[in-house]
Amino acid sequence: MRCDRIWRGARLATLDPARPGLGVVEDGLVAALDGRIAYAGPASDAPAFDAAESVDCEGRWITPGLIDCHTHLVFGGNRAHEFELRLAGASYEEIARAGGGIVSTMKATREASEGELVASALRRLDALLAEGVTTVEVKSGYGLSQDAELKSLRAARALGGERPVSVTTTFLGAHALPPEFKDDRSGYVDAVIAMLPEIAQERLADAVDAFCEGIAFQPDEVARVFEAARALGLPVKLHADQLSNLHGARLAAGFGALSADHLEHTDADGAAAMAKAGTVAVLLPGACYFIRETRMPPVDLFRQHGTHMALATDCNPGTSPLTSLLLTMNMGATLFRMTVDECVAGVTREAARALGRLDEVGTLEAGKSCDLAIWDIERPAELVYRMGFNPLHMRVWRGQ
Amino acid sequence: MRCDRIWRGARLATLDPARPGLGVVEDGLVAALDGRIAYAGPASDAPAFDAAESVDCEGRWITPGLIDCHTHLVFGGNRAHEFELRLAGASYEEIARAGGGIVSTMKATREASEGELVASALRRLDALLAEGVTTVEVKSGYGLSQDAELKSLRAARALGGERPVSVTTTFLGAHALPPEFKDDRSGYVDAVIAMLPEIAQERLADAVDAFCEGIAFQPDEVARVFEAARALGLPVKLHADQLSNLHGARLAAGFGALSADHLEHTDADGAAAMAKAGTVAVLLPGACYFIRETRMPPVDLFRQHGTHMALATDCNPGTSPLTSLLLTMNMGATLFRMTVDECVAGVTREAARALGRLDEVGTLEAGKSCDLAIWDIERPAELVYRMGFNPLHMRVWRGQ
Ligand SMILES: [Zn+2]
Ligand SMILES: [Zn+2]
Repeated sequence: MRCDRIWRGARLATLDPARPGLGVVEDGLVAALDGRIAYAGPASDAPAFDAAESVDCEGRWITPGLIDCHTHLVFGGNRAHEFELRLAGASYEEIARAGGGIVSTMKATREASEGELVASALRRLDALLAEGVTTVEVKSGYGLSQDAELKSLRAARALGGERPVSVTTTFLGAHALPPEFKDDRSGYVDAVIAMLPEIAQERLADAVDAFCEGIAFQPDEVARVFEAARALGLPVKLHADQLSNLHGARLAAGFGALSADHLEHTDADGAAAMAKAGTVAVLLPGACYFIRETRMPPVDLFRQHGTHMALATDCNPGTSPLTSLLLTMNMGATLFRMTVDECVAGVTREAARALGRLDEVGTLEAGKSCDLAIWDIERPAELVYRMGFNPLHMRVWRGQ
Repeated sequence: MRCDRIWRGARLATLDPARPGLGVVEDGLVAALDGRIAYAGPASDAPAFDAAESVDCEGRWITPGLIDCHTHLVFGGNRAHEFELRLAGASYEEIARAGGGIVSTMKATREASEGELVASALRRLDALLAEGVTTVEVKSGYGLSQDAELKSLRAARALGGERPVSVTTTFLGAHALPPEFKDDRSGYVDAVIAMLPEIAQERLADAVDAFCEGIAFQPDEVARVFEAARALGLPVKLHADQLSNLHGARLAAGFGALSADHLEHTDADGAAAMAKAGTVAVLLPGACYFIRETRMPPVDLFRQHGTHMALATDCNPGTSPLTSLLLTMNMGATLFRMTVDECVAGVTREAARALGRLDEVGTLEAGKSCDLAIWDIERPAELVYRMGFNPLHMRVWRGQ
């Protein structure tokens, strides 16, 4: 059987749902043809391959390429100084006066050119890629105007042309209320909905997101955005139940959302609705850690109800300036008490499911994109256990 | 004035105690001669240099090379599986039966050759160096027998021959009670004291450490070890007050210790005694995070009493598998509410003080070793604010 490249002498964490746990194959082989997996499984069951190149993995582990399914990589400016002021005891007002807060990111994002947004996002993207990420989701949501939101989505799309990585984009116009609408929330929701047709027509976004929270948008406002997205055939997802329980999980499930994200305050009813709808729970421990949240998402409820759980960085300048999925896994285990298998599945198979791309990526199965992370480790637990250590040996995207 | 190399167009965080805060110099210049700093300060005040090489830093920041002043880098084995079992709900007994706990590290350390210990430590050391570390402290303490402790110290010393980095070594025989002494604590303390003369004679250790805790050694046992160290002219330091207040801080100060480390349960009396004795408080947020400690060290007391504070990784397989000083700074800020200046000083000037090496390293001052970290950042706060991002542009050790 012809193929372009095989990796042999490897231990595989296939994440194949037909196998238990991580779908481990001890003496494994992966073959790539035309960028796709032609075979992944035991070497003893593999057909005879006629490969242009054969790589001996010397016992290393291969997992699916990692997937960061919730990021805000594209934004202007830098909030490090705000962090410094807060540690020095500055009040909210003092920080706002010093130009801090989400409005500062909005202004810097509006002022930046598309090229500048791409350049600053690439530094963050490169940090993710260095740890084996092969698919990344990127949201808009710091422009908060038609021009700046479309510019942000174009910048997000452009990232995929700059680096060997699959990028999915999400329109998050309903992220925060921009100052020019501060007395007209409904008017801004109308404006967000008015942005949708052009975004859909230009295929700038693969999904539509919103932030459902007391400090952001109410459930009925979110529902208006989601209905408009549905009418255009765009899937939805939601920042839900992070700081309070507005029943965002149930709202998301009701719209058949790909995922509901954060979920610190989600209750049993929300977890059950998500399981039934197939809406993935995307958990974001970096934000919990950074804002010193003491309420953790109800992992036990998700287990009881069979809600799928993914993990992501939530990389953003205000509440999670985090660019490491390995550290995210450690936080998932340390802070949320997720198991090693749940953490590894959370940044591979379940992250793919949360993006609606499980047919393409997220497991080592024939037919999928040949996206691999090859690791210098003795067991997958090492990916979760260590902090600030990168054992990546090689990253493969579409067979290369 | 002749010199080997100059770095110009840089912003300096000199950490010079004669300047306020981080000792910032906006248009700075550093000159190296024979591995030492010939000049560090404003370009406008610099003498005319005749340099073999001149590097334009293009506005980048230069800090002193980072110093990790508390690590257990040298050990055998791997405790990732124990972490996995604990997350899966295994009891302490089940983990012990599966070969977990500090005894497993002791056994693997005893079984490893010196070369194997060096090889495994190098991977961890390389992670530290990649973030700009130029000086690192390494403890023994997993051998717990004369042979294995001396082997560990030789491995630690050997690290400095393998990489361009300054290594200081610490003898931590009084880390835990080995099984062969389980009914004879006093006998093991005698055995530790009996190891000291050879360690001193062969100059294998720059200091002597002990773990003062209910689960380790009592204050009177620590005092016996410290008296023996003092008789041999070896400085001391102490793992103190981590899990309970045995007044380890005061004990350490009483012996004029270089540092007392951990200190979660230290009281005002201990903080005052340390300040008076010049004993540095070495804070280890990675361990707090990893074991989910809710009691934080009394940073406010240290500020009130003027106790110097350093930060370190405590890199070890049981309670802090952490190999990032950048992440350690973020944890110092996020978990302990240390300011940006305290965090940056804690891994440079104060870490040098904690090792008794402030005359050699830790600040950008003429006469010291030319150990630099050059960063792609706009302000030092970025070193503390981000998580899992390495903005190091270049590391310089002894002028190279
Ligand atoms: Zn988010
Ligand atoms: Zn320690």
